Amino acid sequence: MSRPDWIALDWGTTHLRGWGMTASGSVIEERHSEDGMGRLGPDGFEPALRALCGDWLEGGPVPVIACGMVGARQGWAEAAYARVPCAPLSTPFTRAPGDLEVAIIPGLSQSEPADVMRGEETQVAGFLALNPGWDGVLCMPGSHSKWAHLSAGEVVSFRSFMTGELFSALSNHSVLRHSVGGTDWDDAAFDDAVSETLSRPERLAAGLFGIRAAGLLHGQGSGTARARLSGLLIGAELAAAKPYWLGQQIGVIGAGPLARLYVRALAAQGAPAAQANATAVTLAGLTAAWKLRSQT
Amino acid sequence: MSRPDWIALDWGTTHLRGWGMTASGSVIEERHSEDGMGRLGPDGFEPALRALCGDWLEGGPVPVIACGMVGARQGWAEAAYARVPCAPLSTPFTRAPGDLEVAIIPGLSQSEPADVMRGEETQVAGFLALNPGWDGVLCMPGSHSKWAHLSAGEVVSFRSFMTGELFSALSNHSVLRHSVGGTDWDDAAFDDAVSETLSRPERLAAGLFGIRAAGLLHGQGSGTARARLSGLLIGAELAAAKPYWLGQQIGVIGAGPLARLYVRALAAQGAPAAQANATAVTLAGLTAAWKLRSQT
Repeated sequence: MSRPDWIALDWGTTHLRGWGMTASGSVIEERHSEDGMGRLGPDGFEPALRALCGDWLEGGPVPVIACGMVGARQGWAEAAYARVPCAPLSTPFTRAPGDLEVAIIPGLSQSEPADVMRGEETQVAGFLALNPGWDGVLCMPGSHSKWAHLSAGEVVSFRSFMTGELFSALSNHSVLRHSVGGTDWDDAAFDDAVSETLSRPERLAAGLFGIRAAGLLHGQGSGTARARLSGLLIGAELAAAKPYWLGQQIGVIGAGPLARLYVRALAAQGAPAAQANATAVTLAGLTAAWKLRSQT
Repeated sequence: MSRPDWIALDWGTTHLRGWGMTASGSVIEERHSEDGMGRLGPDGFEPALRALCGDWLEGGPVPVIACGMVGARQGWAEAAYARVPCAPLSTPFTRAPGDLEVAIIPGLSQSEPADVMRGEETQVAGFLALNPGWDGVLCMPGSHSKWAHLSAGEVVSFRSFMTGELFSALSNHSVLRHSVGGTDWDDAAFDDAVSETLSRPERLAAGLFGIRAAGLLHGQGSGTARARLSGLLIGAELAAAKPYWLGQQIGVIGAGPLARLYVRALAAQGAPAAQANATAVTLAGLTAAWKLRSQT
């Protein structure tokens, strides 16, 4: 393969994905490893990068653009947050220590209510690059789901919800682990649960225990239980995020099952949402960052 | 010591507590072990009981009264739930297999909304034995907090909340584990957090992530973080349980720090709650069960 003109990195807590890129923003090759920020010490980042794509780095400096938790305080180099309202990509990027030419995109912060993001700002930038002039609200489902209000190319405000991490913690480390195993799914149960907590969000904690009780008393199956757990949590998130999405143009980042659940739940509220592929917007955001860096 | 007339057992998921009792309901001696239901197979219960108080069981049959998860499907013998509305102690009790004379108190169930309790029904019975004629609402904080509406000696309805288990799962298995370590505490932060989710329960999931963000951005300390986590969860529970406690006579079972937090949070809402010692009400309930069994 030809040597890339630059390297794009999405470097999160649990994973590292790298793309060898052409100057025009096309992908030559994609690679990934499990060398996420969470398992690396300060001296582990350069070896992890060389392990993934050392051959791309031979024979002269190749610019590297990275986003995600690699820029956290426990990461390779802390990239101080840019404070909203601001454009999703804030220069200057942070240079990682060492001989490689690695630029890390800073995350965004919000003072009140206190909130932070790292990595999602690059998705926002990519979405805007692919949809110039787009105003509205972006939903980015995940461990810490983000809702961002975009206007005139800036992130005006945003809010994070621990929905994904709650689902994981409850599925694996609570009494519900006995109820939600397997891979079955029940769409109707999901819809009902979303509706319950969206209209009565205070019912979340009781609804969670009710999943266990319904299994004991009524033989509720694991597919229904898992769909109810997901629905109760997403419904509560939608209730809290309502000031964001109500009456707004909505984009959901992600093409997988989780993003589809958000789109389904929003549609049931009469709020149509467009879906965008997460990898595509991440790459578009890293490409936008690379162009921005080339200009400065 | 003298041989007990009967033995009282509180046999939960993680612990076994036994009391050697006199016929008049006085404690001769208390013992406990870690042989909770969760670590015992079907054949493990009798040896666990003999390991704790084999000497009390020598020289003739000694009646044993047990409450808690020992009566679950995975316990020593399944004690079918009694369905509310009903008195907290429903006879007949379930006889455990084997030679020992062990009677297990059944838990309570509610069909709609689906809910169950095992062990708390004995606390309710004990509270009523110590406070004859009491009508009102009992709050029993814990991994699965219970609120029970009592009238004319019966449990009319009840509701469980996964508050304690959410606190534990989030403290140990989410990004908040970085924020809430140690033993510091911040009363004002607790009060503020209770007030937030009590008035706006939909803010829970965002408020949880905000604990992490406030640590990163504003250097919020672990005592404030832990108090906020507790307050957000208890506030959301109080919001959901409001139909139970509003305008009612309230009793909180427990004398420890957790029960005090519930009393503090209720007091801030102008709802004074009486506290009752959990061990005392459990023993009073087991004693009431022993008398009931002696009569039948």
